[in-house]
Amino acid sequence: MSPLKKTAEISNIVHMTKNKTVRLGIIGIGNMGQSHANNILEGKIPGLELAAIADQNPERLEKYPDTPKFSEGIELIQSGTVDAVLIATPHYAHTTLGIAALEAGLHTLVEKPISVHKEDCERLIAAWQDPKLVFSAMFNQRTDPAYCKVKSLIESGELGSVQRINWIITDWYRTENYYASGGWRATWGGEGGGVLLNQCPHNLDLLQWIFGMPSKITANCQFGRFHNIEVEDAVTAILEYPNGATGVFITTTGEAPGTNRLEVACDRGKLVVEDGKISFTRTEQLVSEHNQTADTAFVKPSVWNIDIPISGSGEQHNGILKNFTNAILNGEQLIAPAGEGIHSVELANAMLFSAFENTSVNLPLDGAAYARLLQSKIENSTYVKPEVKSSKVADLSGSF
Amino acid sequence: MSPLKKTAEISNIVHMTKNKTVRLGIIGIGNMGQSHANNILEGKIPGLELAAIADQNPERLEKYPDTPKFSEGIELIQSGTVDAVLIATPHYAHTTLGIAALEAGLHTLVEKPISVHKEDCERLIAAWQDPKLVFSAMFNQRTDPAYCKVKSLIESGELGSVQRINWIITDWYRTENYYASGGWRATWGGEGGGVLLNQCPHNLDLLQWIFGMPSKITANCQFGRFHNIEVEDAVTAILEYPNGATGVFITTTGEAPGTNRLEVACDRGKLVVEDGKISFTRTEQLVSEHNQTADTAFVKPSVWNIDIPISGSGEQHNGILKNFTNAILNGEQLIAPAGEGIHSVELANAMLFSAFENTSVNLPLDGAAYARLLQSKIENSTYVKPEVKSSKVADLSGSF
Repeated sequence: MSPLKKTAEISNIVHMTKNKTVRLGIIGIGNMGQSHANNILEGKIPGLELAAIADQNPERLEKYPDTPKFSEGIELIQSGTVDAVLIATPHYAHTTLGIAALEAGLHTLVEKPISVHKEDCERLIAAWQDPKLVFSAMFNQRTDPAYCKVKSLIESGELGSVQRINWIITDWYRTENYYASGGWRATWGGEGGGVLLNQCPHNLDLLQWIFGMPSKITANCQFGRFHNIEVEDAVTAILEYPNGATGVFITTTGEAPGTNRLEVACDRGKLVVEDGKISFTRTEQLVSEHNQTADTAFVKPSVWNIDIPISGSGEQHNGILKNFTNAILNGEQLIAPAGEGIHSVELANAMLFSAFENTSVNLPLDGAAYARLLQSKIENSTYVKPEVKSSKVADLSGSF
Repeated sequence: MSPLKKTAEISNIVHMTKNKTVRLGIIGIGNMGQSHANNILEGKIPGLELAAIADQNPERLEKYPDTPKFSEGIELIQSGTVDAVLIATPHYAHTTLGIAALEAGLHTLVEKPISVHKEDCERLIAAWQDPKLVFSAMFNQRTDPAYCKVKSLIESGELGSVQRINWIITDWYRTENYYASGGWRATWGGEGGGVLLNQCPHNLDLLQWIFGMPSKITANCQFGRFHNIEVEDAVTAILEYPNGATGVFITTTGEAPGTNRLEVACDRGKLVVEDGKISFTRTEQLVSEHNQTADTAFVKPSVWNIDIPISGSGEQHNGILKNFTNAILNGEQLIAPAGEGIHSVELANAMLFSAFENTSVNLPLDGAAYARLLQSKIENSTYVKPEVKSSKVADLSGSF
């Protein structure tokens, strides 16, 4: 163990035993970092203290006059002033800073995506050697009661086997102004992708969390179709699962009002999640059984029309922050272990790979081949970012 | 002109001038043929008289004791007893009997699909040399007011340019009993395909009727996934249009209750056709314009929520029969000219071709290459049809 790591660990134990609080450093005080910082400063996360912040942009740091500041994340990590870090930088640094934080013996919460590509995910996950360190990812939509309910219904066997999934998640509308708001945004070198890497990690994570990983992906990606960007802003993907189930995943940042509708056809009927409601059309008989035994050609199984109540949208980001804190203080089970973050990245990578190569991609994805492809996109990029404009301040609480 | 053709034409003119009725022969007295025959005998189609029927199965003919009968379609065509034919045989014979009927100078209405593959469509259409002959196809869903409305809204420019289409049409559930009800069903040699050739020609026709033809298709087809058949019973296809619009078309006969939901994202918002309703979420500003001019990153254009009233489901089969009759008697414009039937066949063929070759297919499809592929499926088939069972009689009026 490095002396640095050992020092940090002893410091953590002493501090937490004494105060029963976790001293958190936030690295990256952009949209999300500020949102998290404000929630903590407002006391919304019991046991979590904002002990330090880091950002390369001094203007952002000035918004927090009473909080210790660092211009570089690595300085914060090595400062000995925090027990844990939340990494909310542009995506590529999730890997490098995440590895540094884990190696320094800090509990680590990383924003989505945990890395830009599968190989970086593997490097990051490999750096997590100490099981006493809590290592989590900001998959806040795992706290959404609608998706929790779908997952539990499937796991309980209530729906029978899943046969077909259709997720239209096209309500990630972004304006040109959004893309012009940061030089790194929507570039291969700065972000490593577009809607799949920035907006969709949540949906891709829920997809794998609820339904598991597909075995094959065939995707159509359109690059800069709606916006002046070099990365994908419209995606249509066909998924195939080991049991023969099929899926479709559709997303774009170019559509308004857009749709967020998840349909799941099962052996026990059909589930639709839309507008904060779950509608379940339950067949009285398993479809597979009815299919085999019906003595007429055109009859369908009888159904019940069921509304499954859902209240609210869960604790979202604050829920993950609370869970991270309680995992450190009390050993609470993590809602979103960071290691699971590799799956959403692999799905995004595979969709891009399929589109670039114009062929189906079998999973597990060849991470090295994808990393080479991405590197070639970065090296061959001729894209020139339009002048960065300032945006009006927007309420982002529901945006990520 | 052949003597046969000349005789038939003179006979037609004399008969129609005298009686102002069209003498129709129906070839193929299976499910659909019987349904059409019954509607005509019940007097539902003014000006249309059931003058003859043909079927290789004598039991079916016995149900119509007062109607002249032929055991072969070609005998009916050459009998001189009819002015027009309706061809409702298994699919392959649509081409051969359609060509024979047109060459004999008969007005011809062909059930969907007009042929099994694109090359056969071309042969059939090429046989239509005489513009005085009315040549139509049974695309009865073109009479559905919901789809008529979508088409007129798009053509009027009300929706702006179409950006994305998603049609989930999985309510074509069929039982094993259905597939066992005819030896030709769901075989490469007997039907030339499965759900795409039998159930979906309507939807594929509406798709091209409303939105035009895509330029590229990428499809996943599953063969005998839900049923003991050799052809496709589950399909997921990605479409790409010349203007960059994307589409998804999903169908299966293995799902219950299934879904019939058409979503269209446009520059002016979103249209959803489901459960006999059209819901239109109209953006106050064109999305493309808002995208370019908004001075914040996360704002969406304001919308109106609009319900567009639709009453009933149109005249369907009887509407096409009336239109066919009126086209012959009064020169009424056809709702579904048979020549347009090639497009739905080309879409179906391209989806199968893409799945078999595991690659995207650019349109126009190479019809000869597809015909060779289909021929190889027929020649290499090892499928043995399970024993044909009798079904209970079902009301099919809403089934095709």
